[in-house]
Amino acid sequence: MKLSEIGEFGLIERLKELLNSSIIGDDTAPLSVGNTTVLLTCDILVQDRHFKLSYPASAIGWKAISVNVSDVVANGGLPKYALVSLVLPDMELKYVEELYEGIKKACEFYGCEVVGGNVSGGERLIVDVFMLGQAERFVGRRSARVGETVFVSGTLGDARAGLELLLMEKRSYEDFELRLIERHLRPTARIDLARHVSKYASASMDISDGLSSDALKMAKASGVAIKLYSEKVPVSLELREFCKRHGKDPLEYALAGGEDYELLFTHVFERLNPFLSMIPVGVVIEGEGLYLDEIPVEPKGFDHFRL
Amino acid sequence: MKLSEIGEFGLIERLKELLNSSIIGDDTAPLSVGNTTVLLTCDILVQDRHFKLSYPASAIGWKAISVNVSDVVANGGLPKYALVSLVLPDMELKYVEELYEGIKKACEFYGCEVVGGNVSGGERLIVDVFMLGQAERFVGRRSARVGETVFVSGTLGDARAGLELLLMEKRSYEDFELRLIERHLRPTARIDLARHVSKYASASMDISDGLSSDALKMAKASGVAIKLYSEKVPVSLELREFCKRHGKDPLEYALAGGEDYELLFTHVFERLNPFLSMIPVGVVIEGEGLYLDEIPVEPKGFDHFRL
Repeated sequence: MKLSEIGEFGLIERLKELLNSSIIGDDTAPLSVGNTTVLLTCDILVQDRHFKLSYPASAIGWKAISVNVSDVVANGGLPKYALVSLVLPDMELKYVEELYEGIKKACEFYGCEVVGGNVSGGERLIVDVFMLGQAERFVGRRSARVGETVFVSGTLGDARAGLELLLMEKRSYEDFELRLIERHLRPTARIDLARHVSKYASASMDISDGLSSDALKMAKASGVAIKLYSEKVPVSLELREFCKRHGKDPLEYALAGGEDYELLFTHVFERLNPFLSMIPVGVVIEGEGLYLDEIPVEPKGFDHFRL
Repeated sequence: MKLSEIGEFGLIERLKELLNSSIIGDDTAPLSVGNTTVLLTCDILVQDRHFKLSYPASAIGWKAISVNVSDVVANGGLPKYALVSLVLPDMELKYVEELYEGIKKACEFYGCEVVGGNVSGGERLIVDVFMLGQAERFVGRRSARVGETVFVSGTLGDARAGLELLLMEKRSYEDFELRLIERHLRPTARIDLARHVSKYASASMDISDGLSSDALKMAKASGVAIKLYSEKVPVSLELREFCKRHGKDPLEYALAGGEDYELLFTHVFERLNPFLSMIPVGVVIEGEGLYLDEIPVEPKGFDHFRL
């Protein structure tokens, strides 16, 4: 059987079986080191899969760090150290320096540090980042409880619209289009919510494959069902404008668009903190699967091998 | 300037400058986490650079773990946790399963555990491993002291001869040839020496780019010179036989052959433990650079961008 037949998630399930580890299954691996809870994660950007060489190099560096920080904060941690593994075609040194500038700026912003890495030659540019975070309390995706409210940390679907705009390769973009493109090129991990998640959330993960796909994963992992309310799913004015012009449905972008890097977490409604970016979008109920309003939803997410 | 002009080591120097970090410069990054010294490292295997798809998949998995364990033990640590990041072309699931079998076997052998990872699609197979180790005492390459003896942990040059034999693609190989090929395909990290290094070594690193190149790096990092004695450099009977048949010089293989994954370390001669695999090959002297017997040596190592 080929990987394209089994698909990304099928492969991951198979590898999990092979390893037979109870630790695997969250955005990060929580480990006890001495008297501390350490979170380990890695996430990779591959040329022509996750980005094009025509993108600003500093944005690629920024994003490589951000997607890893997103995993760490999703599990209630703060990022501490990163290793950067680069596979480099024979390119301009200047390009690599700009990439590293983006990495450095992101690390300054998130309060973490690159402590090592590796360079190797290859056909296409690959930026693989490994990150170590620390957490007061680890919060994974397997512990959502019936009766809790489901929150997201911001508007969804913008990054997908931004990607589509980028791929149009227009001569010039309007302001709202540039803002959508920025959401794709330079996502910001929700480090502002790390402490809230660590303190109050029962379950948490980041939204990287699309809300419907990721909410279903959380429901499955927790042995519950999740019901989302379509009118609560936050959509930006920019995405509305984009959809109006292109005859698209913003809700579909919000549910199925990937790479939002917003957080998805659950706790009792009363813990809603109006000073933080958190929007109630649904509830945890008994049963299994995902519901949009009253209707069961088949997830539409992103599969790296089925593209 | 192109990367091929500045070269691998030039690029690394430039990136170190950009990061301006005192931690970077050893096989692993030593970090204090809680009350523990943690060692972080990553090392990558890229198809058609570090291996061919025709190699046994389990050997690629074994090696991906071993080269990281080698970094950890070189700095006096023991490996604890690994993350495995895979970039996969659309290949047979069976191949990936075999790769993972090699990873699992290596982890069992070294006493560490895969706790997570990542899969992504790509044109060529890439196995990028991130490892966390723990050490009683970190030993880096910057602290060799004048008067100490320089040791290596085993015969050198075998892996290079093994690679050349593999590339000959002979129909059948003799036993001594198969042993050399094994040294290239399935290197064993010197975990047997981790405690000795941690306890007694002043300076330590692993030999991945060739003895002359790596010894020069240690000399530079420590602000000393290293003198190697050519007749002490350990060479296997297999390598001697290989060189006899092909009209080559075993010493050149031992000095310039890469991917040995033996250790290079220094301490006073009196700490030589005859029950461990450690061979005195030289001394740390005042000055700078590398000497073979009385002659200054220009290093011949491996540069990933200059191939």
